[in-house]
Amino acid sequence: MNHQWILASRPVGLPTLENFKYVESPLPQPGPGEVLIKTAYLSVDPYMRPRMRNVRSYVKPLEIGQVIEGALTGRVEKSNSPEFSVGDLVIADYGWQEYGLVNPKTDIIHKLPKESALLSQALSVLGMPAMTAYFALQEIGQLKPGETVLISSAAGAVGSIAGQIAKIKGCRVVGITGSDEKVKVLKSEFGYDEAINYKSAGSNIRKALKDACPDGVDVYFDNVGGEISDAAITLIKLHARIIICGQITLYNQEEREKGPRNLQYLLVNRARMEGFLVRDYQARYPEAVAQIQAWMKAGKIKHRETITEGFQNTPQAFLGLFKGNNIGKQLVKVAP
Amino acid sequence: MNHQWILASRPVGLPTLENFKYVESPLPQPGPGEVLIKTAYLSVDPYMRPRMRNVRSYVKPLEIGQVIEGALTGRVEKSNSPEFSVGDLVIADYGWQEYGLVNPKTDIIHKLPKESALLSQALSVLGMPAMTAYFALQEIGQLKPGETVLISSAAGAVGSIAGQIAKIKGCRVVGITGSDEKVKVLKSEFGYDEAINYKSAGSNIRKALKDACPDGVDVYFDNVGGEISDAAITLIKLHARIIICGQITLYNQEEREKGPRNLQYLLVNRARMEGFLVRDYQARYPEAVAQIQAWMKAGKIKHRETITEGFQNTPQAFLGLFKGNNIGKQLVKVAP
Repeated sequence: MNHQWILASRPVGLPTLENFKYVESPLPQPGPGEVLIKTAYLSVDPYMRPRMRNVRSYVKPLEIGQVIEGALTGRVEKSNSPEFSVGDLVIADYGWQEYGLVNPKTDIIHKLPKESALLSQALSVLGMPAMTAYFALQEIGQLKPGETVLISSAAGAVGSIAGQIAKIKGCRVVGITGSDEKVKVLKSEFGYDEAINYKSAGSNIRKALKDACPDGVDVYFDNVGGEISDAAITLIKLHARIIICGQITLYNQEEREKGPRNLQYLLVNRARMEGFLVRDYQARYPEAVAQIQAWMKAGKIKHRETITEGFQNTPQAFLGLFKGNNIGKQLVKVAP
Repeated sequence: MNHQWILASRPVGLPTLENFKYVESPLPQPGPGEVLIKTAYLSVDPYMRPRMRNVRSYVKPLEIGQVIEGALTGRVEKSNSPEFSVGDLVIADYGWQEYGLVNPKTDIIHKLPKESALLSQALSVLGMPAMTAYFALQEIGQLKPGETVLISSAAGAVGSIAGQIAKIKGCRVVGITGSDEKVKVLKSEFGYDEAINYKSAGSNIRKALKDACPDGVDVYFDNVGGEISDAAITLIKLHARIIICGQITLYNQEEREKGPRNLQYLLVNRARMEGFLVRDYQARYPEAVAQIQAWMKAGKIKHRETITEGFQNTPQAFLGLFKGNNIGKQLVKVAP
């Protein structure tokens, strides 16, 4: 049998378990040219939340009854494709399912080297979040040695990699995160020069950021939006770059929240703010993967994964993203 | 005698005549190397308002008792400088005064060709507002033929030139302005394809913009900020560019107004928003002046000046900027 998680209803505000439905179906059999994959690891990501809204964005929204979209890794169980053999490790895109049927001619599927560590790493430190950190910093951040880089959601899948890349580029790196434990991890493990717990800073967030960035901010890597970003933008320097990579504080809001009008900071600082979507860089992933692997070998990039065991617990792992439960990439381990 | 307008008090909200004081002083005499200039035209500009606030921006604020800063043109009356002769026409930067003393070694002063039309044009169609339009479109706008360019404060000094340059570049150009008369001028005189009176549109501004830009907006040239920009940003297309050139709706606010959080539009459209200050391009003004003069000769750039007669009326001319009294560049004619 196969199992799937489908969208049962559109979330209103913070999603709940009731928005997801666990369904059982016969194990699919590969037709001509098709490949059957047994899922090893599933990725859950904040971007999945806006797709549950009935609004067309850069892709069309999920429909009620549809399997929740997302990337996963797995092993080929059966193959009618000459390109894939039973036992091959792959990364694919068939969403929250224990087994997936893929047609390599029309669907996303890439072979991975046969190292079991890659089953999780292809979704974390060598996967989409790391690609996001790498290309957003390269294309929009344009870091120069000595600059101050401020990163929100710093202990998350993207932030934890972005901070280390910024350190490699010779920058001073400051992280914003949601617990004292994460502050410690950022400094001791990911090499951040300074880190702030925004929850304990509360309404003093601007002062906390100013203390941590006394000379201002050259690059703000924004994964959250909202009040943290309001404070960050008041500290930008001449010719600052602001990467709009995620706006997680807004994803669960049903009414568009208001914030201070602050574009004068862009004006007087001739600063640039730019939206980033990693899918635009897919053709260049190999370049980034090779570079990050080299940095990993040299001990310059460390990574963490927060792994939830069991396919049944996929929605819980997803909901945990909005509570900040994870350090590094949040994955679901579906099969050993 | 000389006359000056000085800052009497810092405006709170919309400036009033009481914030300015008219003072008389003896005619200054040029010392060694100095030049005495008799003002012909004065420039009044929205950017002067934020400088009246006691906040350090890209320059230090005006002090109480200080002559209001600004550019002007005039004729050399006396000269102890070998570079300038009596009768030379010049553009300089000594602010709201009937006569100014300038040291060419330390102060801004440039000779103009001896054509009296240039006394106003050096502050309008060949001056700072036109340089703003030219370089902001070139450096941030990066217009491609067929794109839709939306311009706020479209009938103003910057917007009226920006729209015409965008037409020359083969774009579809839509203007936002504050009266039906200006709508007419934008279309009949400045070649805008479409223009909207935001005052009559009221809370339907988004619909009015959408009707005028049915395929969305590639470049938004923002001179105003606030609710007009809120509506504009909802219409941006993939890889749109937003030029933050002015935020006049915010300049008279004592408390930072709030607006909808809308950075997700940047994210999903991978759009870029960038602050612009023309002073960064001073070294390249000759290139832009030559190009605009060529376009004027070819009949491709028209311009308007709104001229207030008499140095005494300088504050009124300045206050008029916030009521939208001007079409094209607002100048004060100080001497014939």
